[in-house]
Amino acid sequence: MSERLGITYELSCGRGESPERKARGIALEQTVELPAATLPPGIESAMVGRIETLEPAGGNRFRARISYAPETVGGELTQLLNVLFGNISLKRGIRITGIAWPAALLRRLGGPAYGTAGIRRLTGVRERALLGTALKPIGLDAAALARRCEAFATGGIDLIKDDHGLADQPSAPFADRLQRCQEAVTRANARVGGNALYLPNVTAPFAEFPRRLEAARAAGCRAVLVSPWLAGLDSLRWARDQFGLALMAHPALTGSAFGRRHGIAPELVLGDLFRAAGADASIYPNADGRFGLSRRRCEAINGHLRGPLGELHPAFPVPAGGMDVARAPGWVRRYGIDTILLIGGSLYARGDLVRGARELLDAVREQHA
Amino acid sequence: MSERLGITYELSCGRGESPERKARGIALEQTVELPAATLPPGIESAMVGRIETLEPAGGNRFRARISYAPETVGGELTQLLNVLFGNISLKRGIRITGIAWPAALLRRLGGPAYGTAGIRRLTGVRERALLGTALKPIGLDAAALARRCEAFATGGIDLIKDDHGLADQPSAPFADRLQRCQEAVTRANARVGGNALYLPNVTAPFAEFPRRLEAARAAGCRAVLVSPWLAGLDSLRWARDQFGLALMAHPALTGSAFGRRHGIAPELVLGDLFRAAGADASIYPNADGRFGLSRRRCEAINGHLRGPLGELHPAFPVPAGGMDVARAPGWVRRYGIDTILLIGGSLYARGDLVRGARELLDAVREQHA
Repeated sequence: MSERLGITYELSCGRGESPERKARGIALEQTVELPAATLPPGIESAMVGRIETLEPAGGNRFRARISYAPETVGGELTQLLNVLFGNISLKRGIRITGIAWPAALLRRLGGPAYGTAGIRRLTGVRERALLGTALKPIGLDAAALARRCEAFATGGIDLIKDDHGLADQPSAPFADRLQRCQEAVTRANARVGGNALYLPNVTAPFAEFPRRLEAARAAGCRAVLVSPWLAGLDSLRWARDQFGLALMAHPALTGSAFGRRHGIAPELVLGDLFRAAGADASIYPNADGRFGLSRRRCEAINGHLRGPLGELHPAFPVPAGGMDVARAPGWVRRYGIDTILLIGGSLYARGDLVRGARELLDAVREQHA
Repeated sequence: MSERLGITYELSCGRGESPERKARGIALEQTVELPAATLPPGIESAMVGRIETLEPAGGNRFRARISYAPETVGGELTQLLNVLFGNISLKRGIRITGIAWPAALLRRLGGPAYGTAGIRRLTGVRERALLGTALKPIGLDAAALARRCEAFATGGIDLIKDDHGLADQPSAPFADRLQRCQEAVTRANARVGGNALYLPNVTAPFAEFPRRLEAARAAGCRAVLVSPWLAGLDSLRWARDQFGLALMAHPALTGSAFGRRHGIAPELVLGDLFRAAGADASIYPNADGRFGLSRRRCEAINGHLRGPLGELHPAFPVPAGGMDVARAPGWVRRYGIDTILLIGGSLYARGDLVRGARELLDAVREQHA
């Protein structure tokens, strides 16, 4: 691994704050964590981040590109997160806007095992956008959730995921929900000749996580839902390598990193990082819904999930969060068919879930970008 | 578990944004994730967050207190994080400023196994503030780091932790570093009659984490360093239960949640959450150093680590980040002796590490709050 990791930062400088010192501070903070004067011989050139460029970006903002020796990261996702935004998360006015990935690091992280082609194989859907929905609400028992699952699968939804807030609560304990929902989907698939997938939420405490993955595989699931920011980003990569299940990633808690002046750009977290860690599909809050990302930002996320990233498979963008049935065709035209539309509330609002799902399927079937 | 989880939010409302709707949006978003009109009978009263109070807090700000049924969280840290700030992290203008913990949830999470009293037992330090330092920089080999370790232990530093950026890089691979540093500390302890602890950084990818903990225990370490935001918060709790090692938590990456208008108050993350999850000591960036927390904020963190939290043991605050030897006595007077002062760069700047450590020890020995 000789290629360096390149990180682009947008720096917002306070009054009297020098952009040169701010950039140099990052280069030291994210590596040696010592003032340069106290470094032993050879460490500065070998380990300290190297400021490659620094240029004005309007007003009090500056764009810095700093490169890091591959040695700094090694090959571990925990330490990669640390180099990206560990200590500097505790500072102000630093926003990561780009990552230039060393090919060797991407190879080591591995990316999606299935990717868009693999998910299409699993669902048997070739030439249209895929449809997803969320099983909810929390509070229903497993039998009631399974009935909803069966209705969605009957109506033609391709991927039916647990709401990410369904964990192992008493109203619908994980094991019971898993069994009933997977059986319901299997039954519906047999009846209508479908390939719908049920994705249980396996996000869980450390020791439980492997058990839920194993249970999901044993129950016949072919994909699962994980919230990497809750369980730890590397849990995604590990699940990919150990269980052979397709992985849909949920953005819970990531939004705290999406500040306008401080944080990490959403397309890098929900795009690059989740994809590199193994997500075959990555959920994000779509524009015009109940969250605040702009259309341009959503298109950037799509691009980072589907565009070139070393030799990694492309992953599915999953726009969600207040999407509705009526506007679904428009989103397919805008985002293209390599998209999973995740529609929840608007389907539930129709009351008849089978019919709602069918209408949605009919609406997007003929849509192309 | 019948007591409800209470969360206090500071809401910043945009032009035309109603605080009532914003609070109600949170109550729905963090539970059922559906519009109220689509909820099956009984779910609203059982599961939706209940707005207990909502009051103006100056300008466009409002203070809301919402309570949640214990059922929403169940007993898992992953889902607790989700209820706290999962989806709403993706919104704007929501800041969590208080958590009213149900006693049963705290009992279930368990808190520190050692706590302040246990760390004092391990180090044999009774009536003064404890001294900590960080082994660095990355780039030195394990032998050189071990020499630094030995010097610090000889000079009287109580807790010598890996820099949190030391993972398993080629320059000082984990296994080699662990062995040499622990041996160095043992040697120094024998020579000077001390009880210094070496805390290897066990933050690691999912499958590696148990192996590094096991290796640390086997090498004779009695405490370790974990970055919960990198490895997943529950990894801390799990390590406590499985390995019997004392735990020092590092705040890497947490700062992205510390926005002024959006996020979670630092004393809740580095105080309540880390302590509830099992941290015996929690590092935070001290005021007047290279990070931006105010003195008042730091005192709030101290209070949340040491003050009443159900029946949980108190944990040590570990102010760090640009602390210096000269001002150490002042911090002890301000924060009290149940504090671990973590001083890195300023010790290295002195050149002679043994002597620097002795001066530091002499300086704080007689200080009381």
